[in-house]
Amino acid sequence: MTMEKNRIGIDIGGTSIKAGVIAPNGHMLAHRETATPLNPHQGMDQIKGLIGEWLSNSETTIGVAAPGPMDLAHGTFLDPPNLKGWHGYCFVDQFEKKIGKACLFENDANAAAVGEYFAGAGKDAQSMAYITISTGIGAGIVLNGQLLTGAQFSAGEVGNMIISGEGPTQEGLNTGSWESLASGTAIKKRIQELYHSDGGAQELLMRVNKGEIEAIELFQEWIGYLAAGIANLIHVVNPAVIVLGGGVMQGKDVILPALVPAVKERVYASLADSIDIRPALLSTKAGVVGASYLPHVKRL
Amino acid sequence: MTMEKNRIGIDIGGTSIKAGVIAPNGHMLAHRETATPLNPHQGMDQIKGLIGEWLSNSETTIGVAAPGPMDLAHGTFLDPPNLKGWHGYCFVDQFEKKIGKACLFENDANAAAVGEYFAGAGKDAQSMAYITISTGIGAGIVLNGQLLTGAQFSAGEVGNMIISGEGPTQEGLNTGSWESLASGTAIKKRIQELYHSDGGAQELLMRVNKGEIEAIELFQEWIGYLAAGIANLIHVVNPAVIVLGGGVMQGKDVILPALVPAVKERVYASLADSIDIRPALLSTKAGVVGASYLPHVKRL
Repeated sequence: MTMEKNRIGIDIGGTSIKAGVIAPNGHMLAHRETATPLNPHQGMDQIKGLIGEWLSNSETTIGVAAPGPMDLAHGTFLDPPNLKGWHGYCFVDQFEKKIGKACLFENDANAAAVGEYFAGAGKDAQSMAYITISTGIGAGIVLNGQLLTGAQFSAGEVGNMIISGEGPTQEGLNTGSWESLASGTAIKKRIQELYHSDGGAQELLMRVNKGEIEAIELFQEWIGYLAAGIANLIHVVNPAVIVLGGGVMQGKDVILPALVPAVKERVYASLADSIDIRPALLSTKAGVVGASYLPHVKRL
Repeated sequence: MTMEKNRIGIDIGGTSIKAGVIAPNGHMLAHRETATPLNPHQGMDQIKGLIGEWLSNSETTIGVAAPGPMDLAHGTFLDPPNLKGWHGYCFVDQFEKKIGKACLFENDANAAAVGEYFAGAGKDAQSMAYITISTGIGAGIVLNGQLLTGAQFSAGEVGNMIISGEGPTQEGLNTGSWESLASGTAIKKRIQELYHSDGGAQELLMRVNKGEIEAIELFQEWIGYLAAGIANLIHVVNPAVIVLGGGVMQGKDVILPALVPAVKERVYASLADSIDIRPALLSTKAGVVGASYLPHVKRL
């Protein structure tokens, strides 16, 4: 991948809009952030404010990461639960009018995957699946430098994979889906039931560290669910590297030593030694970095 | 894809070795078949007998499909259960010595997928997942003309995907794996338990057609398992088309009308209308046809 001008990446989240400008050598020259407003028109003004100075010396297309669901064919937001005011907003059209550059819109898990693949934990890998475990579970898959978006832009929607015949009911998800059993939200509910507290995954890990039996049992069940979903992804795609990100991975020092052997138990014996699971490296900048690469990435 | 010479494809199975020669325009000029011998050296002699006359006017590389597991990096058979005498046989080396042309070795599900993609049910699709449901369950995934083989050649080993927390134990497979719950073998076992007969899936479908309550219940459970695995594949890869092959699909007229709505129920509502599930078209020739394309197909 050869580049001559600076690249701009934008990451729109439920709480903040982030933007960065990255030199052709991969060095991030500047990173800015602003609170996400309720009104998308105001949001577009803020985006112009963040990146305006960078426009003259940057590439003709700007990558933008945002939470799904989105209509990528038309460049519009659909109904992302944590961006209420933005539902139906024709982002790409408005962006191109307001900013005067082309826009490549992509969902945030895919953008983060692209970031980790080209500049993070998957930098040395030919193929990679990035899995984000936070309130939900999503994935982005990069194969030989190409982003797997899927025929209806729904590749990597792994949170809805069925890993069990039973589980809590969650609107819009299958019974026994990976997300309903293993996401941060799922664990938070279990912690609420057990301890009547809102501490979520971090509280669970703290109690595990203290050696509390009930917490350890819940933790092991959770690791089993996490491992089942990862094993499923491996049996479909067999990526060289699995990169794990998302808020839950703040507890990676407790999670990974339990999770890696649990995944190995659930794949063919001939594959177990090749399993390579790594924590994400780019943290909260993965979306911005990945977005900046989007105009250079082929889609599958 | 432009070709000038004839292509040869070979498909080694547990009961027969098939070979075909295909003109640049896609027309199959000849197809020959011989019983698979126990001894692979004898098998190689038979292969030479099948294709010898075709060699002078054919391409320099010949594609060969065979049952896994295989070591594709070294071109050897590992321990395929229905090719006992062939375990450990260095097929590619022996082939190139004996036949005098290069050999591209691939597992049979991937080869059949390539055949269906370029010349069968997926001919018009940009991306396709081919799923074979017979004694086991396997898949081959073709994305934008590229075969997804995976980092350890284990992409598409979907039979080991976990779709349930419980199920019968089967050596080498996860508890609750797709194959242990939904393969032809799994159904055969259930039919044996219920009716003390060896009629398998065909018997089940016959009893369903007669309106037998117990059979209909088992059928619906089976369709649910089949649908769960297909939905999982869709949520990872989101292919434009799903093609179903394998012996079990002889019952496609009963299976598909139940299976398609069951898959639609298990994917995101926004995807349901786009679900496109088709029966395979190439039948027993899929392996030969697919093998003949292998030298022209990039791998992911």
